[in-house]
Amino acid sequence: MHTDLVAALDIGGTKIAGALVDGDGALLVRARRPTPAREDAEAVMGAVNEVLAELMASPLWHRAGRCGIGSAGPVDASAGTVSPVNVPGWRDFPLVERVGRTIGGLPVVLVGDGVAVAAAEHWLGAARGYDNALCMVVSTGVGGGLVLGGKLHPGPTGNAGHIGHISVDLDGDLCPCGARGCVERLASGPNIARRALENGWLPGRDGDATAAAVAAAARAGDPVALASYERAARALAAGIAATATLVEIDIAVIGGGVAGAADVLFAPLRRSLRDYATLSFVRGLTVTPAVMGTDAGLVGAAAAAAAVPPGAVGAVRPVVAQ
Amino acid sequence: MHTDLVAALDIGGTKIAGALVDGDGALLVRARRPTPAREDAEAVMGAVNEVLAELMASPLWHRAGRCGIGSAGPVDASAGTVSPVNVPGWRDFPLVERVGRTIGGLPVVLVGDGVAVAAAEHWLGAARGYDNALCMVVSTGVGGGLVLGGKLHPGPTGNAGHIGHISVDLDGDLCPCGARGCVERLASGPNIARRALENGWLPGRDGDATAAAVAAAARAGDPVALASYERAARALAAGIAATATLVEIDIAVIGGGVAGAADVLFAPLRRSLRDYATLSFVRGLTVTPAVMGTDAGLVGAAAAAAAVPPGAVGAVRPVVAQ
Repeated sequence: MHTDLVAALDIGGTKIAGALVDGDGALLVRARRPTPAREDAEAVMGAVNEVLAELMASPLWHRAGRCGIGSAGPVDASAGTVSPVNVPGWRDFPLVERVGRTIGGLPVVLVGDGVAVAAAEHWLGAARGYDNALCMVVSTGVGGGLVLGGKLHPGPTGNAGHIGHISVDLDGDLCPCGARGCVERLASGPNIARRALENGWLPGRDGDATAAAVAAAARAGDPVALASYERAARALAAGIAATATLVEIDIAVIGGGVAGAADVLFAPLRRSLRDYATLSFVRGLTVTPAVMGTDAGLVGAAAAAAAVPPGAVGAVRPVVAQ
Repeated sequence: MHTDLVAALDIGGTKIAGALVDGDGALLVRARRPTPAREDAEAVMGAVNEVLAELMASPLWHRAGRCGIGSAGPVDASAGTVSPVNVPGWRDFPLVERVGRTIGGLPVVLVGDGVAVAAAEHWLGAARGYDNALCMVVSTGVGGGLVLGGKLHPGPTGNAGHIGHISVDLDGDLCPCGARGCVERLASGPNIARRALENGWLPGRDGDATAAAVAAAARAGDPVALASYERAARALAAGIAATATLVEIDIAVIGGGVAGAADVLFAPLRRSLRDYATLSFVRGLTVTPAVMGTDAGLVGAAAAAAAVPPGAVGAVRPVVAQ
């Protein structure tokens, strides 16, 4: 049997997306359901099964050779379970086993959603050709994934690259994760908007008080809006520089809604990076916008399934069902 | 020819040590010179050559199959050069080529001294049996190295694991490296002593104002001395938690003079770690003292030479002479 496709799942707090992905990263068949995030574990799994059923009904299904899942975290790839913050019904939910049962006989690889995005950007996006890369998503939260030595580095539990929850301000504000001064607490979209509002920025007549509205105000020269983005950029720069200093990366790729602010974010980010990435081996670091868009999670889940061999050992050891 | 030994060099700002190291990590022949750190490049290289000449004069020299160098950083393993902060005569000094010329015909592997210590602790020390580890030296400076997926992770330039210069306090004091709030700026021995003195701690009659004297005062209950160690511990905890969150590690091993403070450091460090290592996949992290002592640099240089194959690619690609 010719099994050149990967059944990819991208599981988030808002939607559950699926696709059959070919060896070039093309999505040949798609399916999608809203995540019943307030319902119980079986209701959420029911939505996953509906997505899978649509893929399995495709005449191409017989070409699917494995399944890759990128899920909102935390995940535990070593146990095959997920506990997405925004899906309270799933706590240590045995997703790998359940998906394996539904699709019968195919190996299943699980990684965190940030790791999946990194796999996508490295395979076909802005990190292509770079052996050492950090790929980030800056939006409602801040997530990420790492490519080290030319290979995806999911870590033993599939959560590596979690840059949103490293502290860059050890005495700073309490983060919902329990730590203080996390990158996410300073740089996520909601925190950019909150800080602008707290410092006196007034939304326009449409009442839009999102980070995108703050970006528009910054572009028009509003100093409070500019300052909020500059603070976010500074936190991102400190986090990116820390990552480069710890593992040596050549490029940091940033996607997600907040990256849509373009130069309002990237100009101060590149300036701040010069302040924090000071050692000789990190000074050449490049920062660039992501290019893979909203399909990154699916493309990356497929890439992770291909990159992470079932039964692999060491840093790359996700649980494989069947 | 039976080449079961490694010629190891440990190059620091104070001393240049060499040894022939066997497959069990035993140092069969030793040599050592003070580093002429204030002299010119050739004078420093002269001291290296004297150490090598002593090793080469040994009847065991014919069993040396390769050479491993751990050097004070920054190093550039991809170029084979070193620029140790405390050896101003060496800037981009082509150490790999020069050592290769002296010893003729043996492959030479270069890593940073923190990476060498990590290799030693992973091979024979406190990180033995752990696939994912951070090993640190907290002393005049703060350095480190990483083991990921069961293998040493020197990074492309041999500097990975440089935890002393990640910022955990982005608005904090300026660090000599140019960044702000680096772990080293908060947690190194001289900074522990400086902070205690600034806050009113008075050295004893012997005038000893080192971090070790602050540790003794802390053990005797001096609140300012205790607070200085607690601050250092908090910075180390934030840095260790950041490392675990970024790459997933199971253990952090801490050596160097400041680790000699024992519970004065480790008790608040373990408490603080609970505050910063909050995500499910980092909560189980262990912190433990190093065990390899002052030979760690030599044993680790030998381990790195064995672990990093000449001509290896990707994250592990040091320059090899000859």
